[in-house]
Amino acid sequence: MASVIDDLRGIIAKLRSELEEQKKSTHTARERIAHMSAEVVDSNPYSRLMALQRMNIVKEYERIRDKTVAIVGIGGVGSVTADMLTRCGIGKLILFDYDKVELANMNRLFFTPDQAGLSKVEAAARTLSFINPDVRIETHNYNITTVENFNHFLTTISKNSLEGKSVDLILSCVDNFEARMAINAACNELNLFWFESGVSENAVSGHIQFIRPGDTACFACAPPLVVAENIDERTLKRDGVCAASLPTTMGITAGILVQNALKYLLAFGEVSDYLGYNAMNDFFPKMALKPNPQCDDRHCLLRQKEFQARPKQVAAVIEEAPSEPLHPVNEWGIEVMGDDELSQEDQQKDKQTSLEVGAGLRLAYEAPEKTETDVAAPIAGDVGADASLDDLIAQMKSM
Amino acid sequence: MASVIDDLRGIIAKLRSELEEQKKSTHTARERIAHMSAEVVDSNPYSRLMALQRMNIVKEYERIRDKTVAIVGIGGVGSVTADMLTRCGIGKLILFDYDKVELANMNRLFFTPDQAGLSKVEAAARTLSFINPDVRIETHNYNITTVENFNHFLTTISKNSLEGKSVDLILSCVDNFEARMAINAACNELNLFWFESGVSENAVSGHIQFIRPGDTACFACAPPLVVAENIDERTLKRDGVCAASLPTTMGITAGILVQNALKYLLAFGEVSDYLGYNAMNDFFPKMALKPNPQCDDRHCLLRQKEFQARPKQVAAVIEEAPSEPLHPVNEWGIEVMGDDELSQEDQQKDKQTSLEVGAGLRLAYEAPEKTETDVAAPIAGDVGADASLDDLIAQMKSM
Repeated sequence: MASVIDDLRGIIAKLRSELEEQKKSTHTARERIAHMSAEVVDSNPYSRLMALQRMNIVKEYERIRDKTVAIVGIGGVGSVTADMLTRCGIGKLILFDYDKVELANMNRLFFTPDQAGLSKVEAAARTLSFINPDVRIETHNYNITTVENFNHFLTTISKNSLEGKSVDLILSCVDNFEARMAINAACNELNLFWFESGVSENAVSGHIQFIRPGDTACFACAPPLVVAENIDERTLKRDGVCAASLPTTMGITAGILVQNALKYLLAFGEVSDYLGYNAMNDFFPKMALKPNPQCDDRHCLLRQKEFQARPKQVAAVIEEAPSEPLHPVNEWGIEVMGDDELSQEDQQKDKQTSLEVGAGLRLAYEAPEKTETDVAAPIAGDVGADASLDDLIAQMKSM
Repeated sequence: MASVIDDLRGIIAKLRSELEEQKKSTHTARERIAHMSAEVVDSNPYSRLMALQRMNIVKEYERIRDKTVAIVGIGGVGSVTADMLTRCGIGKLILFDYDKVELANMNRLFFTPDQAGLSKVEAAARTLSFINPDVRIETHNYNITTVENFNHFLTTISKNSLEGKSVDLILSCVDNFEARMAINAACNELNLFWFESGVSENAVSGHIQFIRPGDTACFACAPPLVVAENIDERTLKRDGVCAASLPTTMGITAGILVQNALKYLLAFGEVSDYLGYNAMNDFFPKMALKPNPQCDDRHCLLRQKEFQARPKQVAAVIEEAPSEPLHPVNEWGIEVMGDDELSQEDQQKDKQTSLEVGAGLRLAYEAPEKTETDVAAPIAGDVGADASLDDLIAQMKSM
């Protein structure tokens, strides 16, 4: 009998050590590191980042530890965005999503098949904390577009930074129009800088847009710009067809998003106002977008007045960024009419508000033609008289 | 006594189930899938990829299952490259590296801190098989530049595809000159297409280059091109300083590498011959590189003769790719002299072999000035008469 007990105890000891080993290999990563060091040793996860200082790229890399970034949408772009910022040693991430991981997401980076069924924010938080335990992760598993959640979102981004103040930057990685409009409204109200990002439904283009309330066009100022791919739009939208996606396009979009976020947060290089990516021909259009003095968002109008009344602050943050002309090439299929194609009346209306769309870009949808009393929308484009408002809303919703 | 045994048995049962759960959460991912399906259900990991067919981007996406790609160098770029191809459902990957994972690699995507100490190919193979068990993974943990290993490398890439033939494409993600020259020699000898890739030591630029023996410049035809960043080179190289790296630049470089590899393998879009990336100003220079009729690699010369003798095959593969002019902009700090700055003698020498370096690009090092009998190097640049061969070799080694 005693030997049976000994045997059983032996089995227990073995199982315990096996379990310990198993847990160790999956849940312990490394101890927290109090201060970022530039020491060049294999065991220092920050040596290659701190090297940016010695190479005169970034002045004070450690400042990244003081920064809080909110990411809305933890899908194909948002998860890689969070991964990159975590590996860069960002101070705090606040993640918003209400979706679950599915096997159908496995064609994009970051999530793994064993996470199917978990909420995206929970699965992401686990992986990110495992990769870098120095990063504080806060998660919110809800849809920001409902009234109650929107208010909570507003409070969170205005108070939950590391210092209990508003976050340093918001990155939009959502896949729908309503969520983008919600982020836009919140950022206009709170006067917070944010980046919008997106990838096309056919998986072969993406873009990022830096929105500084009052200084640049907000998301409500004009129809959003997307990269023109010269692909027949009619092949894209059919019943029962899911959007295509590629880990490449998503990864590149996340990469240019985080790279520009780092340039802004750590004050190096030149932050792009708008950068597009067309995978079919490796074309990367850039442009700047001025705010619309007739924007429907009242907070946007308020920010515009404030911005005009003060000396340019952003120029001080991005000190060494020279303004640069757009590429003069024009062989990429511009889908927006030039000034000379507009009627004189249109030209007059557009005088103050004209949105010049760069080569290779097109507007995601056409703006509704407004009545005289409603003031014209700032679109230098072919405003279709026969496009009904219902059609436009349907187009917007399907973005 | 019996109750003690029951207790112990209970503990064992609990531990076993806990261990099972633990193993399940880490080592089982999903069952293999025999055929790629386009069915739009959450449980189908290929639905978003097969959607590329319905959206008329790719004609036959399933063909990716027949493809074998070799990746040399499983570091910051190579590991993400392998991850992307795995999630795309590539048929087979052959991975080459001889390095180990270190905590100092954690500022780049893919590897996790628990993998520190494992060989990079072993750690990568485990993660990739876990993500997508449909992909066949073959690993080689050695340095391809030694004579013995080079011969094994040559045999492997010429015989280890899914059909026992040569691989469909080789992706170079190495960080040194010798390894690139070894891949170049192998691909010239076997007449295999490959992509070269690289990121700069200051972490803010990267590039990819598509090399088709005989058709484009090989790696030995001319000094490699890198993206000019307008950053003082003298700040880069100091004793005891490690290279800087960023997950963004590495991820973007891997993204454009795999995107172009997919375009080539699945015959869609336009494959770029050379695509650079400058993170400081989001500039993406493109150019084409003609082979050098005086290349030092005898297999390159052989391929050039073969290519000239036959109708253009590549043009057939990339059917819908229109040839496009380089961006005519020129404000990015070209570091290579124009034709009009060269002496008449130089111009004559360069007539057949001139390498036109695109805007925003510069040569990684200057080629040694050759004697009359040795024939001039095809560089339309400022060949420094005072640069000794030793200096040049030192520059090349530090790439």
